[in-house]
Amino acid sequence: MKYTLNSKEVAEASREWLMKRGVRTEDIAELTYFLQKDYYDNLTMEECLSSVEQVLSKREVQNAILTGIQLDILSEQGKLMSPLQEMIENDEGLYGCDEILALSIVNVYGSIGLTNFGYIDKLKPGIVKELNDKNGERKHTFLDDIVGAIAASASSRIAHRKQEEKEKGMR
Amino acid sequence: MKYTLNSKEVAEASREWLMKRGVRTEDIAELTYFLQKDYYDNLTMEECLSSVEQVLSKREVQNAILTGIQLDILSEQGKLMSPLQEMIENDEGLYGCDEILALSIVNVYGSIGLTNFGYIDKLKPGIVKELNDKNGERKHTFLDDIVGAIAASASSRIAHRKQEEKEKGMR
Amino acid sequence: MKYTLNSKEVAEASREWLMKRGVRTEDIAELTYFLQKDYYDNLTMEECLSSVEQVLSKREVQNAILTGIQLDILSEQGKLMSPLQEMIENDEGLYGCDEILALSIVNVYGSIGLTNFGYIDKLKPGIVKELNDKNGERKHTFLDDIVGAIAASASSRIAHRKQEEKEKGMR
Amino acid sequence: MKYTLNSKEVAEASREWLMKRGVRTEDIAELTYFLQKDYYDNLTMEECLSSVEQVLSKREVQNAILTGIQLDILSEQGKLMSPLQEMIENDEGLYGCDEILALSIVNVYGSIGLTNFGYIDKLKPGIVKELNDKNGERKHTFLDDIVGAIAASASSRIAHRKQEEKEKGMR
Repeated sequence: MKYTLNSKEVAEASREWLMKRGVRTEDIAELTYFLQKDYYDNLTMEECLSSVEQVLSKREVQNAILTGIQLDILSEQGKLMSPLQEMIENDEGLYGCDEILALSIVNVYGSIGLTNFGYIDKLKPGIVKELNDKNGERKHTFLDDIVGAIAASASSRIAHRKQEEKEKGMR
Repeated sequence: MKYTLNSKEVAEASREWLMKRGVRTEDIAELTYFLQKDYYDNLTMEECLSSVEQVLSKREVQNAILTGIQLDILSEQGKLMSPLQEMIENDEGLYGCDEILALSIVNVYGSIGLTNFGYIDKLKPGIVKELNDKNGERKHTFLDDIVGAIAASASSRIAHRKQEEKEKGMR
Repeated sequence: MKYTLNSKEVAEASREWLMKRGVRTEDIAELTYFLQKDYYDNLTMEECLSSVEQVLSKREVQNAILTGIQLDILSEQGKLMSPLQEMIENDEGLYGCDEILALSIVNVYGSIGLTNFGYIDKLKPGIVKELNDKNGERKHTFLDDIVGAIAASASSRIAHRKQEEKEKGMR
Repeated sequence: MKYTLNSKEVAEASREWLMKRGVRTEDIAELTYFLQKDYYDNLTMEECLSSVEQVLSKREVQNAILTGIQLDILSEQGKLMSPLQEMIENDEGLYGCDEILALSIVNVYGSIGLTNFGYIDKLKPGIVKELNDKNGERKHTFLDDIVGAIAASASSRIAHRKQEEKEKGMR
């Protein structure tokens, strides 16, 4: 059978995999709210949620989600080759491909998201902390960075939109 | 006169411009120490300083320093064209070329520095806070990000070296 | 007077500066057509032009255009500090901040544009060749990379849209 | 057993995996020679080979090699989840995580390597063409980009070193 890309399938799979790995869009929206609430008095969770949804609709983001979660799952199952298996399984500090994939998400919404990504990755608020819990059976070496990157991207998007609204109001 | 690159001159100019703009290598080393002290009991300021010196010896880093400080100075003097002048002068949040130049510094030492860069940019410890003071005459729209990026890169370098030391000790 | 960002002004200025520096959107669209014509039989110049227009509407792209052209102009006027002046004036090969700014444009449309950017930068077709002519009075150290990056981004955008069209047709 | 990173093991594994996948350091050195021969009259294959070896000694590069080849192998074995399996197996044009990993290699040697990476990825000389042959059983969706990135990085390194030599000669 000849291969042909099915975009809807890619979009749906990335959403399902997030869910199966314990990440709801609401969890990511909460990170975005946490990042942006001090800058906009009238910011609502609905806006954050809607912004996260938009970020999730981008194919680059979907590709990074699918690839990162796949590597996480394989490392849980012990199916990667050594020493990649050990590095990913143990979230090795000198292994940076997780940050690389996350950066590709942030970049889609421009460099202003870099700061927020780094901040979340260090502070580990909300769902990021849960994903980082090394006591459970699950390994989220890639997913915690990816979730932080989606939240940071949604924050960039909100910054752009709030500016638009402000300029419209001034006309 | 035919142009020919003088690497020593580029290296020296980047060091001098940092000094003239109020940034000592010690100030950057303190940021690095702040970032890494919790991970290594025996970390010294000398190690941080030496790591910062190594980062400053890289040409990509020197290029970013010279370009960023040049734009800062021109914005202080009001010599940029509008609306670039206003965006840089006011450290516009939706202008991200300062983060872009900083990222090019971080990348030289690999993606593991991204987190530290974002964290410093958000927390603004030590010299970064001073550079961010908007009350003075000086504008450091580019320099604060560059300084954070150098400190983050020096941290990545330390992480790599500490691992080397550890492995040597285990032989 | 209090500063407030005027997005329309930024968008218009980036368009005007491109024109003043001798780059028409048609010139960039031709690069995009050159990059994509072999992949899509029915590709038209109108599609390429429309895609370039969309890329130019992104703020990250506008920021890079304004910053890059500003540095080009200042280098022409000899107003940068030495040795930055000499490096930009002579399009020094070991100075990479021009590629850095260009990369920030390409990244907005995802990593699939990287290849096209590199290819154009090396082959220098059409307007890129003219911008690279070192005999004239004008210096386009930044602009040639920026123009290549815009064309590469427009190509990525077309690849995404053609896939959309194809999938719609299959339903 | 407590996990502890073994750097030598990571370095050796990345070399072995390259070999097992049909890529010799000589093949990469030839790409570097192809990229740089027109710029330096006295360039030798030995220099190119030595430069490739240096690039391969960087951990970021080793991480990208191991991760990319692992995904290639899993896609050959049909062990990835759908639709990631189909996208990687068929080197889907809108899937860009292969370019992302390659970019992380190029970045270590600075932005001046971007052009060469893109050029090789488009032209597919030597070993890159072989890796791209879709008729065989092997899938090299990640590896062809990684090999191009290593060759581009080795080229950047040579550019830096040739400048050093030139400046030494002028003293």
